[in-house]
Amino acid sequence: MCVPGCQEVVTQRLSRRNLFRGAAGMAAVAAFSSTPVAGAFAAPVSFTRVVDLTHVLDPAFPTFFGKPQLEVRKLFTFDKDGFNLNEWVVNEHTGTHLDTPFHFSKDGLSADALAIETLVVPLAVVDVSAKAAANPDYQLVAADLDAWEAANGPLPAGVALALYSGWEKKLGTDGFRNADAAGVLHFPGFHPDLAAVLARKGASGVVVDTLSLDHGASKDFAFHYKWLGSGRWGVEAAANLGALPPKGATLVVGGPKIKGASGGPSRVLALV
Amino acid sequence: MCVPGCQEVVTQRLSRRNLFRGAAGMAAVAAFSSTPVAGAFAAPVSFTRVVDLTHVLDPAFPTFFGKPQLEVRKLFTFDKDGFNLNEWVVNEHTGTHLDTPFHFSKDGLSADALAIETLVVPLAVVDVSAKAAANPDYQLVAADLDAWEAANGPLPAGVALALYSGWEKKLGTDGFRNADAAGVLHFPGFHPDLAAVLARKGASGVVVDTLSLDHGASKDFAFHYKWLGSGRWGVEAAANLGALPPKGATLVVGGPKIKGASGGPSRVLALV
Repeated sequence: MCVPGCQEVVTQRLSRRNLFRGAAGMAAVAAFSSTPVAGAFAAPVSFTRVVDLTHVLDPAFPTFFGKPQLEVRKLFTFDKDGFNLNEWVVNEHTGTHLDTPFHFSKDGLSADALAIETLVVPLAVVDVSAKAAANPDYQLVAADLDAWEAANGPLPAGVALALYSGWEKKLGTDGFRNADAAGVLHFPGFHPDLAAVLARKGASGVVVDTLSLDHGASKDFAFHYKWLGSGRWGVEAAANLGALPPKGATLVVGGPKIKGASGGPSRVLALV
Repeated sequence: MCVPGCQEVVTQRLSRRNLFRGAAGMAAVAAFSSTPVAGAFAAPVSFTRVVDLTHVLDPAFPTFFGKPQLEVRKLFTFDKDGFNLNEWVVNEHTGTHLDTPFHFSKDGLSADALAIETLVVPLAVVDVSAKAAANPDYQLVAADLDAWEAANGPLPAGVALALYSGWEKKLGTDGFRNADAAGVLHFPGFHPDLAAVLARKGASGVVVDTLSLDHGASKDFAFHYKWLGSGRWGVEAAANLGALPPKGATLVVGGPKIKGASGGPSRVLALV
């Protein structure tokens, strides 16, 4: 159930739409383990190249809320002071960034508390770009996972599952947020039912190339609540997922280690 | 030569001591290539574990300037709003963080412009903790590099050289900044002459476990100017360097990708 007042506040502040965390959602959270599986390197991990999954972040980078979430203040400049140094005012959920369990739970792990072993993990990439091109509200479902596993074998332990929707090609256009006349966003995301499936398969985290783990038109952020609420993490607004193989890469989530952070701009890499 | 006014300003603002960038320093910068060597993975890189070289950052983390450089503002809380979300006001040179070429040059590369291949590189760790225990003003010199190479072979191409001074054991005490009665800091760093030596050997970056690439008592930040000014990067206030082998690890500098940043809090890892 929504805590007192939260529905109104979130309606206004988070999405300008209606938030509802029903009993079904809470039951689903309780139904799967809250202990994330660490990425285990039983065998050596190898790579020969690095793919940067991080967008350049500037104050104009699109945001879920629709307003700028970064200000860069020049405190010192080389011409005047002999060195350059800025200060940032930045919302934790800006640019390519980490969502921690704490973001959508009362006392889940914050960014400083996530074990590093859960942030360096095998990466699986599910390409739903064709479906997303046909339906911007597409939600990744178990059948998509089944198809991936039929082609690539079982998901490795501790995997991070990336949803490649092709959305980054829309960056720099209104199509990235894709707001309709009522202000509702339209982009793909994870179906809430996938949280329990992925948890059962031992996944550590999920990655999207859009502005939210849930599809843009979600009214209840149900995937956020189920997935983050179960002690796992997400990465939003990742870049270059289309440049990766469906399996075999290792994800490095260079998340902030700021005390109590609900997430934050991160350097996200794939070792291929 | 110092730009007009910089000596006074930096004296006041950067160190409360005297800054002097003499002709000799500038000549040394010009004397070595300004093109950083990318970490080349001609052969596959392998690892079996991850060591987090990042300190937890909170507003009390010590700073070079001596005043807090991070504020965490709670914008939304789970109890009130149904989710947690903060905003940070943070100085780019706080906690375990990246120094870019732009930090100490007029138009060097900023954080968003550093090629990712130069941020994932072989790591060499030089242990001068015994010398630093005896002399907090110790500066790493070419003889230390020679000793490392005598024991471990030539530095690999594109290497990041880490100076392990053991200083992190002092974190939480006044000994980490180690300011004397006049406010001058005393901790180890890189000798300015080492910039040209490391550049000649093809190094990409340097890492320290203290608050500055230069030793704390430096009056002129000569290593900063020479090293960063030559197009290379540094990491300051790294953690856990003492847990690493002298060679064989791969450094991952998860630096911010913020447009125009002179550096920033980073997630820094070693793949061992």
